[in-house]
Amino acid sequence: MTAKNAFYAQSGGVTSVINASACGVIQTARQHSDKIANVYAGRNGIIGALTEDLIDTNQESDEDIAALLHTPSGAFGSCRYKLKSLEKNRREYERLIEVFKAHNIGYFFYNGGGDSADTCYKISQLSEKMGYPVQAIHIPKTVDNDLPITDNCPGFGSVAKYIAVSTQEASYDVRSMALTSTKVFVLEVMGRHAGWIAAAGGLADVDDIPVVILFPEIEFDQEKFLAKVDKNVKERGFCTIVVSEGAHWPDGRFLAEQGTRDAFGHAQLGGAAPVVANMIKDAFGYKFHWAVADYLQRAARHLASASDVEQAYALGKASVELALQGHNAIMPTIVRKSSSPYVWEIGEAALADVANVEKMMPAEFITEDGFSITDACREYLTPLIQGENYPPYGSNGLPNYVRLKNAAVEKRLAKFEL
Amino acid sequence: MTAKNAFYAQSGGVTSVINASACGVIQTARQHSDKIANVYAGRNGIIGALTEDLIDTNQESDEDIAALLHTPSGAFGSCRYKLKSLEKNRREYERLIEVFKAHNIGYFFYNGGGDSADTCYKISQLSEKMGYPVQAIHIPKTVDNDLPITDNCPGFGSVAKYIAVSTQEASYDVRSMALTSTKVFVLEVMGRHAGWIAAAGGLADVDDIPVVILFPEIEFDQEKFLAKVDKNVKERGFCTIVVSEGAHWPDGRFLAEQGTRDAFGHAQLGGAAPVVANMIKDAFGYKFHWAVADYLQRAARHLASASDVEQAYALGKASVELALQGHNAIMPTIVRKSSSPYVWEIGEAALADVANVEKMMPAEFITEDGFSITDACREYLTPLIQGENYPPYGSNGLPNYVRLKNAAVEKRLAKFEL
Repeated sequence: MTAKNAFYAQSGGVTSVINASACGVIQTARQHSDKIANVYAGRNGIIGALTEDLIDTNQESDEDIAALLHTPSGAFGSCRYKLKSLEKNRREYERLIEVFKAHNIGYFFYNGGGDSADTCYKISQLSEKMGYPVQAIHIPKTVDNDLPITDNCPGFGSVAKYIAVSTQEASYDVRSMALTSTKVFVLEVMGRHAGWIAAAGGLADVDDIPVVILFPEIEFDQEKFLAKVDKNVKERGFCTIVVSEGAHWPDGRFLAEQGTRDAFGHAQLGGAAPVVANMIKDAFGYKFHWAVADYLQRAARHLASASDVEQAYALGKASVELALQGHNAIMPTIVRKSSSPYVWEIGEAALADVANVEKMMPAEFITEDGFSITDACREYLTPLIQGENYPPYGSNGLPNYVRLKNAAVEKRLAKFEL
Repeated sequence: MTAKNAFYAQSGGVTSVINASACGVIQTARQHSDKIANVYAGRNGIIGALTEDLIDTNQESDEDIAALLHTPSGAFGSCRYKLKSLEKNRREYERLIEVFKAHNIGYFFYNGGGDSADTCYKISQLSEKMGYPVQAIHIPKTVDNDLPITDNCPGFGSVAKYIAVSTQEASYDVRSMALTSTKVFVLEVMGRHAGWIAAAGGLADVDDIPVVILFPEIEFDQEKFLAKVDKNVKERGFCTIVVSEGAHWPDGRFLAEQGTRDAFGHAQLGGAAPVVANMIKDAFGYKFHWAVADYLQRAARHLASASDVEQAYALGKASVELALQGHNAIMPTIVRKSSSPYVWEIGEAALADVANVEKMMPAEFITEDGFSITDACREYLTPLIQGENYPPYGSNGLPNYVRLKNAAVEKRLAKFEL
């Protein structure tokens, strides 16, 4: 087996641990330099492959590659760029194969969500047909936790921990203030289609903290919701609400779209949180505060879940090992053996079974009234937020996140227009 | 000297380290039980004193009191309740003295911001006149960092660290996405009158991250602002904006009040962040994300600054020691001896000099264009976010924050109507 190069790219929204997977890929490849000469990374994801803008990771020191383990974001850049179907734009797929061929790339590691699993699968099929077979391995990553087969998706556990801890902390704060001031706190979280992240807010339901969750899976029932909030305030002094950005009315309109207009008539400035908070104020007059976590939640490497970091790394490592064992068109997965104690191992799924399948929250994870998580959900989520994995900090009080050199590989092909 | 009791109360908005001051007070008092028999805490702050709703902290275990060091929020409850002037409501002040007398309270420790310093001062004066002298010590606390004389205020350093780290993390995220997606990120932070917290966002200006700050001290200049943002996006690919909730137009209107109306015509749902983000979108079409940190920032004990925790504790401890030395009507302060290395010691200020004085950001802390912090500001802020002081976590993945028993002391007086 002569040494080929590998190509690695980050896809879609980044997370606080996607670089941990990159670290797993590159460190493992370096241990097998007889078989993998270099890992080229796509600058800004798959666009880097299409435009032949490859990053030479051999120019990065071992120390800097090790520091990827604790650095959030996408160290090589990511992109939102969905390849069209093979029928509609075969030229793009062919270009990818040409670039791989020109740079002696035999392994394709694609780190992303559902769309990139699909792209990865097509590349493996097409490369074979074009007589330049590439082993394509998909490394799961998405804060949305919506990939099938794998127990969970790297990136999600850390967001879940951040949301659970933040909900707990803000609830402690509100409880202190409730007698004369704020009685209602609303936190808006990510998850347009699936309520996994909102569900994590339910983990803060400790120490007599009343948490009401608005899931995207449940049609918003204003009357029931307001009654629930009012009951909490009256009986327990305050109420915390975790609202998914995807929470919506029965007719499908997002809560965030509630006809808000600015002075110029532009629609929708705010998010779901202020809408919900004002709704409660209008009904009961309770003083409120609201927060929108947005990127803070998915970038919060300072509060990453240790099990999430460990799994992100393990999946990157396993991808290289599986490739060297000759596997193709697969995605390594997390297989849960036990929840308490949490025991897991690496498994694998055929990309044909992964592509274009979305894993939703099971109905049995949401309580009958639609506002809380069940014990089954708690049992599923708890191991994913276990353990702390802190980045090192500098004397400036900030985490020592790494910025790579990201030196370009010399181009060998003609320019390609996206 | 026969043993008297002490009274301790938390006032105004709580912080992630106000309980560290409580811990300093109670632990130090316990070491001097020959002089301080018990520390009674006000349930929900000064309201607890007025209504004679006192908490018997002697019923809390040493372990639980120690855990206050790492627990955010106000463990005894706080309140927003400003005593009227002596002339307008002398009855309230007299009631406080009556309660103190009824419970043999000789020390009054009031943990709060500017208003509570004023209350504390009046109590010390009035108690003397009423023939029941109480030693009144004010313990500084405010995320707004606006108390005079002291180098900084406990609570601020941890918010500053949270905002600096969050700004850095979100900026890393945006830089990864900027080629094809989000180019502008806006974070809204607290600080209606002073820009101390917004300034902390400027500390994230590392690793080539362009941070533009909108201070409440600077009148908003839309044209200049948009030009600055556009330049950053064109030259560096993206731009991060930290906007204070107090940022305002030249005529005084807050940015957050920009005529936003919901479907029912109600004013102002959103915050300053979405207004700023949409303004940029309208001008240049850049895709944006925005976050509003709100309570998350002041409750974030998970990312507290070690120097902040240490100072909050030290000020609580010093209050008791100063009281036992016979001091009255003072506030212990932080005195900075050197910024690098950071050396500080405890000093003291007369409450007469503290009450009703607000410390604003010095003009030399803001750059001439009004959008950044100067090196002098960086030198001031950096020591305040130094060091990490993490809470312990449980097997549920959440911090082990303590909830006290908060048992009531038996009442001895007639009911008092607030």
